[in-house]
Amino acid sequence: MSEHEKSSNVVWHNATVTRERRETQNGHRGGLFWFTGLSGAGKSTLAHSVEEALYQKGFRTFVLDGDNVRHGLCADLSFSDEDRKENIRRIGHMSMLYVEAGIIVLTAFISPFRADRDNVRKIGGSDFHEIYCRCSLETCEDRDVKGLYKRARAGEIPDFTGISSPYEEPEYADLTIDTESRLENCTSEVFEYISASTKNGG
Amino acid sequence: MSEHEKSSNVVWHNATVTRERRETQNGHRGGLFWFTGLSGAGKSTLAHSVEEALYQKGFRTFVLDGDNVRHGLCADLSFSDEDRKENIRRIGHMSMLYVEAGIIVLTAFISPFRADRDNVRKIGGSDFHEIYCRCSLETCEDRDVKGLYKRARAGEIPDFTGISSPYEEPEYADLTIDTESRLENCTSEVFEYISASTKNGG
Repeated sequence: MSEHEKSSNVVWHNATVTRERRETQNGHRGGLFWFTGLSGAGKSTLAHSVEEALYQKGFRTFVLDGDNVRHGLCADLSFSDEDRKENIRRIGHMSMLYVEAGIIVLTAFISPFRADRDNVRKIGGSDFHEIYCRCSLETCEDRDVKGLYKRARAGEIPDFTGISSPYEEPEYADLTIDTESRLENCTSEVFEYISASTKNGG
Repeated sequence: MSEHEKSSNVVWHNATVTRERRETQNGHRGGLFWFTGLSGAGKSTLAHSVEEALYQKGFRTFVLDGDNVRHGLCADLSFSDEDRKENIRRIGHMSMLYVEAGIIVLTAFISPFRADRDNVRKIGGSDFHEIYCRCSLETCEDRDVKGLYKRARAGEIPDFTGISSPYEEPEYADLTIDTESRLENCTSEVFEYISASTKNGG
């Protein structure tokens, strides 16, 4: 018997720092808040704005979006239907590991297919909250912050959601936000929803 | 111009809650502490034991290991050389997102190939710390907590590190721990290293 084996009133291999203890440490529960909507609907902008509000109240948060996921974890994936599905699957699993860490995760992905979002709901259970950023295609195309709609209309981008690939609206979103209205209003609506959903003991 | 666009002295799309602000909130820096070594070397046990010590001092941590990654994010991967490589790539990228969130990540994976670990070092830069859990094959096989070595010797498990697949020892580990010695001693060695490496302003 080695020395290592002798020192063994510890629980081998097992995590003793549980989600519950982390949530006590943080002062709030973890949760996954899944923003979905068209490109240009303001998902990332809203998620970051809500994160700022949460941070100022001491919440532990993280935003996952194309900027930090598509260049790393999912750099091997394209925008084909199959790869979009795998993209969402990975993000769903990764998000739930953040939730295990007691963190409030805000994800901002178009995630156009209902079946893929429902799969994440299955992984996340009651920790999963679908937030639909509702904004008309006209407005999104009008904003066209990155010039993507113009390029999609010109046929330069294949499988572009809303133009050459479908967006399936949520049927039972936990929260629907009209992202054609002022960012301040959208932010406080989502902030209220999240802080109510992540109360310890709630 | 829509209402949404009018409310725009905000920084569009951009994260305002930076890594630095999170680290201030947490009272320590984030970092990636990568435990590598044979199956049975005690990587997960040590990582969880160190996490408990860190938690008690108020550190924000998370352990990634086979238990929480192989069934979810990497459930599509086998133990072939190619899939091990992809497994480590994904874990490396995911870990760095935790570091961005200001968290101390402890990863416990055999990660037998030097090139794969070096790739994570490239992703992580100075945030990456390689911790070699050094333990002889004899001791690991002697412990055989999950009975895997016995099955590997019987030829029931292909590509088993140390038996039918190589383990490439780190050449320049940031820290080498003799995991044949008492867990308490290993734990405090790693704890000291991590708390020194994650001092704010350090």
